Amino acid sequence: MQVTVLRLGHRYMRDKRISTHIGLVARAFGACELVMDLKDPLVEESIQQVVSEWGSSFKVHTTENWKKYIKEFRGDRIHLTMYGININQCMDKIKETPKDKLIIIGGKKVPSEVYSLVDYNVAIGNQPHSEISALSVFLDRFFNGTGLDKDFGGNKKIIPQKHGKKVLENQKT
Amino acid sequence: MQVTVLRLGHRYMRDKRISTHIGLVARAFGACELVMDLKDPLVEESIQQVVSEWGSSFKVHTTENWKKYIKEFRGDRIHLTMYGININQCMDKIKETPKDKLIIIGGKKVPSEVYSLVDYNVAIGNQPHSEISALSVFLDRFFNGTGLDKDFGGNKKIIPQKHGKKVLENQKT
Repeated sequence: MQVTVLRLGHRYMRDKRISTHIGLVARAFGACELVMDLKDPLVEESIQQVVSEWGSSFKVHTTENWKKYIKEFRGDRIHLTMYGININQCMDKIKETPKDKLIIIGGKKVPSEVYSLVDYNVAIGNQPHSEISALSVFLDRFFNGTGLDKDFGGNKKIIPQKHGKKVLENQKT
Repeated sequence: MQVTVLRLGHRYMRDKRISTHIGLVARAFGACELVMDLKDPLVEESIQQVVSEWGSSFKVHTTENWKKYIKEFRGDRIHLTMYGININQCMDKIKETPKDKLIIIGGKKVPSEVYSLVDYNVAIGNQPHSEISALSVFLDRFFNGTGLDKDFGGNKKIIPQKHGKKVLENQKT
């Protein structure tokens, strides 16, 4: 079972950091790829730099037709939106099937079609906050917190410390 | 038991959206206030606008001396950092005491003193991702997911929908 994150509504410059954070969260919490609706080399480079240093086979792609991409996705299509069903009421059902998952993250102006194209509209609470936050909490709960224990096999590796920093480098075998 | 979020290292303009998201996450996931180390009216206005429309008594303050603020905080001081102890290993201990909590969120260049001033350095996984993500997952786990069911008593209220949007206005009594 694989998890793909689709980022809709990306805008150059204005969204560079937000979309980069979305990619990094997707990778760190267990998704295998980020698909964007607009090619942004700055976002791709930032994410690829983390992948080359810290490991994993996480990929960033672009789709030229996000509607077709959602329609043709084989698996459960899950749109994260504050207008949807509270995650506390629907996560058990989502976890039931072993199908691949497409997690769709928009900005403020998500086209209304998205709401009807998907299998689930899921609210990480029905209050305004952040698409980065929504994705991270969804993935953390979906993988029951185990995403955070994964070994990414990168050149850099942190040795957790109670106080201070310890990073090992050149760890890749 | 109250939770306060302290945002360190905010930079005007560059961090406006990131710090605003941190404030909105703090509010939506159950914290009672955001303290910043730099006064930024744009961030404060964005958060206050959400509070006035969607409810809660969430506050934004500024401290002129963050070191003193951390030192004098009465309760557990918890710094979220990828170099710390994985949340999977320390959350149970943090939940044990009923003391107030100060959650400290930095950027890339957190002064090294922060690591020794706090009671816990907690890693939301030891991989790079996002301070917004770190805060949301910490609070979600700390409150056992119940933060997302809270009634904020605001003028606006979402009626969760499987497909589409429904918002009630003028709900405040």
